[in-house]
Amino acid sequence: MVESTVGKVIECKAAIAWDAKQPLEVATVSVDPPQAGEVRIRIMATALCHTDSYTLDGHDPEGLFPCILGHEAAGIVESVGEGVTSLAVGDSVIPCYQANCGSCIFCKHPKSNLCTAVRQYTGKGVMKADGKTRFHCRGRDIYHFMGTSTFSEYTVVHEVSVAKINPEAPLEKVCLLGCGVATGWGAVYNTAEVQPGQSVAVFGLGSVGLAVIEAAQRAGATEIVAIDTNPDKFKLAKEWGATKCINPKDHDKPIQQVLIESSPDGWGYDATFECIGHVEVMKAALEAAHRGWGQSVVIGVAAAGQELHTRPFQLVTGRQWKGTAFGGYKSREQVPGLVELYLKGETKLDKYVTHAFDFDKINEAFDLLHSGKSLRTVLTF
Amino acid sequence: MVESTVGKVIECKAAIAWDAKQPLEVATVSVDPPQAGEVRIRIMATALCHTDSYTLDGHDPEGLFPCILGHEAAGIVESVGEGVTSLAVGDSVIPCYQANCGSCIFCKHPKSNLCTAVRQYTGKGVMKADGKTRFHCRGRDIYHFMGTSTFSEYTVVHEVSVAKINPEAPLEKVCLLGCGVATGWGAVYNTAEVQPGQSVAVFGLGSVGLAVIEAAQRAGATEIVAIDTNPDKFKLAKEWGATKCINPKDHDKPIQQVLIESSPDGWGYDATFECIGHVEVMKAALEAAHRGWGQSVVIGVAAAGQELHTRPFQLVTGRQWKGTAFGGYKSREQVPGLVELYLKGETKLDKYVTHAFDFDKINEAFDLLHSGKSLRTVLTF
Ligand SMILES: NC(=O)c1ccc[n+]([C@@H]2O[C@H](COP(=O)([O-])OP(=O)(O)OC[C@H]3O[C@@H](n4cnc5c(N)ncnc54)[C@H](O)[C@@H]3O)[C@@H](O)[C@H]2O)c1
Ligand SMILES: NC(=O)c1ccc[n+]([C@@H]2O[C@H](COP(=O)([O-])OP(=O)(O)OC[C@H]3O[C@@H](n4cnc5c(N)ncnc54)[C@H](O)[C@@H]3O)[C@@H](O)[C@H]2O)c1
Ligand SMILES: [Zn+2]
Ligand SMILES: [Zn+2]
Ligand SMILES: [Zn+2]
Ligand SMILES: [Zn+2]
Repeated sequence: MVESTVGKVIECKAAIAWDAKQPLEVATVSVDPPQAGEVRIRIMATALCHTDSYTLDGHDPEGLFPCILGHEAAGIVESVGEGVTSLAVGDSVIPCYQANCGSCIFCKHPKSNLCTAVRQYTGKGVMKADGKTRFHCRGRDIYHFMGTSTFSEYTVVHEVSVAKINPEAPLEKVCLLGCGVATGWGAVYNTAEVQPGQSVAVFGLGSVGLAVIEAAQRAGATEIVAIDTNPDKFKLAKEWGATKCINPKDHDKPIQQVLIESSPDGWGYDATFECIGHVEVMKAALEAAHRGWGQSVVIGVAAAGQELHTRPFQLVTGRQWKGTAFGGYKSREQVPGLVELYLKGETKLDKYVTHAFDFDKINEAFDLLHSGKSLRTVLTF
Repeated sequence: MVESTVGKVIECKAAIAWDAKQPLEVATVSVDPPQAGEVRIRIMATALCHTDSYTLDGHDPEGLFPCILGHEAAGIVESVGEGVTSLAVGDSVIPCYQANCGSCIFCKHPKSNLCTAVRQYTGKGVMKADGKTRFHCRGRDIYHFMGTSTFSEYTVVHEVSVAKINPEAPLEKVCLLGCGVATGWGAVYNTAEVQPGQSVAVFGLGSVGLAVIEAAQRAGATEIVAIDTNPDKFKLAKEWGATKCINPKDHDKPIQQVLIESSPDGWGYDATFECIGHVEVMKAALEAAHRGWGQSVVIGVAAAGQELHTRPFQLVTGRQWKGTAFGGYKSREQVPGLVELYLKGETKLDKYVTHAFDFDKINEAFDLLHSGKSLRTVLTF
């Protein structure tokens, strides 16, 4: 019975990142009960995303170890801490790395989802109530990651970071709405606000890039060019809605020049999206945007310290450079709606799940992520 | 009588830039009659702008010599070429370096003023009808500049680049609406679309920066911080509407940090404007824009080859990088309205004219421009 664990420490399975550049250890952790404003969630399904491997590989200078990674997941509320009113035991939920308190200046602004309610604590790998962690293993405190730490059968998350979703939703599918796929969709709808008849160029055809293509098609884009250095990605891209695929390696000219010359009116694309994390590709994407009004959206996360760059003339002649975090979605307010969209059968969400493993195989799932052969691998306990 | 010159070559006074980095020579030039789609204008007043000195100083790798510079002016139509229907002899006009044909894709787009009708010819210093110049001096063809060449008592301009204005307008004042002041206003209204209650930061307090301040105040910005390394500029900035002035040299910290810390809510400014032309200031302006939704507008023209740069994280956390050419105004459609605004007494236009010289003193006017002691010097013939 669920009640038996309420208020008690739970011993369960988790994947611990003891240090950068080392495989995860699947071990037993102790998970403290939720404190005021916190929720303890039983994770039913978690996927892997590049931000997890970025940190594990030691690329994030602010990465803290030992920690429990994971931020693309879905689960069931096991218990709630003092004062928690918006969630109850048994609720189906998606933990969100981007909080949504509803009352900070960012939550109140119609155009931003960058809530600051718990930001300073999640950035330090701890919880707001007492500045401590809820995970322990062999006598050591284990840091939280992105405020979610979903590579654990049970995790503790701030109430303001938990989206309550339709209980009918299959958690091993909608877990993807916790990061990558939602990010790609939102970049199209919220950041670039793609309009019917527009032309779109998408750089990078992983889950994020494919989600951009999916949403661009749904938004009515009539020309969608997909760019990747790995031509194995082109079959999926076409299936998703790309009208043309280009491999930069097939051309001697810079890719932005190739794109401008082949764009519908010869002046570039109405909206371009960087879904890779390379600053040189960000430059190409900006420069491939339409003279006069083209927008370029940065989604990829670049290596620490790198800077994007271009001649100011590119902006003076009307191109706009933007970026997006979690696609601009206000997590608690909008993720439930994305789940409804899926339940209505209006999305390709199922197709992003290319592999499903038992949680114990998490290191193999990371290998698959690095190989470029998976879109999303979903792990279940 | 005006008729006496129609159809004939006019000999008149002009300032010739024989080569980069040399003083202009005030000499007599021959100005051919206008051909099909062209207008010959008697320039009554012309101001100097940095783009003139940028080219004269040899910073523009595409600058062509010998040429007649000048692009901020007003005059009277002396004669019109074949097929010209929108302008007639005697009309008061402002020649515009940004054409506005009304029928290209840029003119038809609600958000762009980057008309391409005559672009490839003005870029080469010639006229569209025959690919040749209308200026000659001592047996040499003299190139046009920016499609305007207003440092001449008479000039020939494409019909699509001439804005017909109210004949009551004092030409020695409204000439400023041909570039700098209009650019600053438009950056606020058209590019950033500043809203009542917003906070604004303006980098560089020349005519362009002051015009940004003027428009920001009129748009209802409640906090307007003015930044310049020359503190002599602060008196004017306050008079124009700045609520605070900052000299980066008074601080050890980077200026963007100083600004963010002193911004109304501690997260930066809703809109920032770079009115200088330094790529490092462009970076500072972008980074001083408000997390979540701040916009930064590049107006200044940077040295050839230089690139603006910042970490992608700055965009991913919601800042937007934009630019503007001629403030986004569609020249023929909108400049007449700016003249009306002036005639209603709703602008500070008169105050930008700090010096008025006879045309012969044009080299002294350039010295004044470089000294930073003038806003705009207006030359009359
Ligand atoms: N901003 C956000 O909120 C947010 C959210 C999720 C993911 N991301 C980031 O988005 C990026 C994409 O994520 P993903 O899961 O789709 O990644 P992925 O690795 O599955 O896909 C990247 C694709 O880019 C291709 N590629 C690599 N270099 C290339 C180049 N030079 N030119 C063209 N193609 C190239 C690869 O072949 C691959 O198909 C990552 O950087 C990730 O960290 C950002
Ligand atoms: N985009 C366009 O359509 C357009 C149109 C007109 C002018 N411009 C450009 O706008 C810019 C400004 O024009 P202006 O006529 O106002 O110039 P200006 O020289 O009169 O003013 C520039 C101001 O910047 C200040 N400054 C210089 N370096 C600085 C620094 N590092 N930090 C802070 N302040 C600094 C100077 O003291 C000066 O007051 C120029 O680059 C010009 O070419 C662009
Ligand atoms: Zn992610
Ligand atoms: Zn909030
Ligand atoms: Zn046009
Ligand atoms: Zn100018």
